[in-house]
Amino acid sequence: MVEQLDGIITQKSFEIIDSEIGKHSFTAEEYAIVRRAIHATADFELAQLIRFSPGAIEQGIASIANRKPIITDVGMVKQGVATMIAKTFQNPLICAIEHASTPLPGKTRTETGLLKVAEEFPDGIFVIGNAPTALLSLCSQVGQGLVQPSLVIGVPVGFVSVVESKMLLAQTPIPQIRIEGRKGGSAVAAAILNALMVLAFCNG
Amino acid sequence: MVEQLDGIITQKSFEIIDSEIGKHSFTAEEYAIVRRAIHATADFELAQLIRFSPGAIEQGIASIANRKPIITDVGMVKQGVATMIAKTFQNPLICAIEHASTPLPGKTRTETGLLKVAEEFPDGIFVIGNAPTALLSLCSQVGQGLVQPSLVIGVPVGFVSVVESKMLLAQTPIPQIRIEGRKGGSAVAAAILNALMVLAFCNG
Repeated sequence: MVEQLDGIITQKSFEIIDSEIGKHSFTAEEYAIVRRAIHATADFELAQLIRFSPGAIEQGIASIANRKPIITDVGMVKQGVATMIAKTFQNPLICAIEHASTPLPGKTRTETGLLKVAEEFPDGIFVIGNAPTALLSLCSQVGQGLVQPSLVIGVPVGFVSVVESKMLLAQTPIPQIRIEGRKGGSAVAAAILNALMVLAFCNG
Repeated sequence: MVEQLDGIITQKSFEIIDSEIGKHSFTAEEYAIVRRAIHATADFELAQLIRFSPGAIEQGIASIANRKPIITDVGMVKQGVATMIAKTFQNPLICAIEHASTPLPGKTRTETGLLKVAEEFPDGIFVIGNAPTALLSLCSQVGQGLVQPSLVIGVPVGFVSVVESKMLLAQTPIPQIRIEGRKGGSAVAAAILNALMVLAFCNG
């Protein structure tokens, strides 16, 4: 194992989180995801903020194992999941913002790119760690029946439109994992997908 | 401006942070950095945890403007700063882990790569957002007089060796910006460097 020491450090980190998280009612698979998100941020508050729609994990695992395309909003999320994808199911990995050198009028670059790639991969796994505008647009596409993602990891971070975008996602019937409120981010998005990929790989 | 809407959203986000952060004693330049870190995480606790060594910001700005090489520990940090670097001073940008396909015995991949690139760029700007092992090694190199970084942004995240690595950094005379405790991460590291680049660019 070329990454032996890294693996030992991760395992030790997980044990520390286990010893500090206290009582919770997550299933084993939910907890594997929560723990990895805490590992990536040292922020135990995420355990209070995470939401899983019914069946989201099972659907996510199946979609990953079926090599559905994975679409990230920004490059940091793509970078954060690329190694794990390469080691496991080699899903196609697409970054929305890379598909928009110029934004459409009144839209952000990420949103513009998201609209393009959603058209091409309407049943992909969407991992949004940064841009609420991308998540809002994706939800609008869902509402119009234009796309039907296999899973949405909806964890944009920040102060403008972030809470609203997650509330809109919550109202869709799409399988989803969210972080409620303002928190989230690229590292959280990558951690959630990476945890799902480990579950898919070890269950396979 | 191709990114007009993105800029407006960032500005609005900064105004929300201004209205919520409460009383503080940061200088204007320190606050520009703190605000961007909060913007990237929605975590106001960072305002309590950030530490600037005397002169670190001035030294950082000068080093950026002098196009010193910027060395990140992992790819997510590199990805998070690449756009701003390209738009401003075009500093050489090196990612330590990319320089270690196999770890040295008893070392992590990031640490192995860091040792290689520190030898090549001993006075670079080091931005550590993930790997405490890389920060520990860098501090050890400083202690031995082998390297003298222009600035260290020391914000690894996590549960094993993270607090210790920051305490060791604090004991060196190297200009530094740290996040005390377990928190930090790629997004925080990128935000701090990006804020410094904006300061360097606007002051220039």
